[in-house]
Amino acid sequence: METPRTEDVQHEEAVKTTVVALDQGEESFHALEWALETIRFGASDKVVLIHARTSPASRLSAFGGPEGYIVSTDLILNMEKAQEREINEFMDRALQLCEKKQVKAVKLIVYGDARDVISEETKKLHANMLVIGSHGYGAVKRTFLGSVSDYCVHHVECPVVIVKKKPEKKDA
Amino acid sequence: METPRTEDVQHEEAVKTTVVALDQGEESFHALEWALETIRFGASDKVVLIHARTSPASRLSAFGGPEGYIVSTDLILNMEKAQEREINEFMDRALQLCEKKQVKAVKLIVYGDARDVISEETKKLHANMLVIGSHGYGAVKRTFLGSVSDYCVHHVECPVVIVKKKPEKKDA
Repeated sequence: METPRTEDVQHEEAVKTTVVALDQGEESFHALEWALETIRFGASDKVVLIHARTSPASRLSAFGGPEGYIVSTDLILNMEKAQEREINEFMDRALQLCEKKQVKAVKLIVYGDARDVISEETKKLHANMLVIGSHGYGAVKRTFLGSVSDYCVHHVECPVVIVKKKPEKKDA
Repeated sequence: METPRTEDVQHEEAVKTTVVALDQGEESFHALEWALETIRFGASDKVVLIHARTSPASRLSAFGGPEGYIVSTDLILNMEKAQEREINEFMDRALQLCEKKQVKAVKLIVYGDARDVISEETKKLHANMLVIGSHGYGAVKRTFLGSVSDYCVHHVECPVVIVKKKPEKKDA
């Protein structure tokens, strides 16, 4: 009996990676729901749930610098911890949804500007697809720099899915 | 035995429509291949293969108007017919691919500017998704008006998948 050649098996089982950008907004969670309902995931395929965080240092400087007089460092660090907890809760909710849909998933929290972090990690992971909400990561920054999704469309090589806010149910 | 409620059955069987924009370029054909390989299509779901054509009238005017002296109307009409034949061949190749992958598909050729045609038809069809190549419909127009895909991302409500040119195989 002829056994399949190793490279054939490897080709069949090539892991496909889908990156889903999550920013704690419901639109990004809807983007994940869309991906899990729409995309055909093989048993070895995986979803990488990515969240880009501003570094604590840049947060401190936004509040008046480490030498600032307005807000105490303790208060900022407490806010930081509270936010970290919130992000972890949100990411865990996303992981649970993947588990429910029987899709392998991991979470990845990276410090840096969302534009750079998402497009660079998508490239590094050799992702097959990036799924992102259209309005993530803050309205003010979007006004000056354009949306994160627009940036990613022009800076990654793989297909990019841009998902908009879930339409509100009229009868709900 | 409890029978499923009518609305449950209707919900289960809701037809999902995926619009794929084709412009005769290989990138758009790759976008279709991507969709057929990646998306989970139900038995009643369908793909609408859309092609936007410049109207014959605007072609005539581009060649010097109906009263133009440079190129005869006969020549233009022959070019028009030849192009129509080419488009139909391309669209039929796309239909055959859908058939091979056992996904229902129809073709839709609409006269008008690609930006308007694709986004308007996507809305009219209440599509669940639009799949489009990143560089379709001519480099010159893209330089002045931006890409058709960028326009569609900002003008349709459903998720938009932007697919880039298939990477060239190094060992091929």
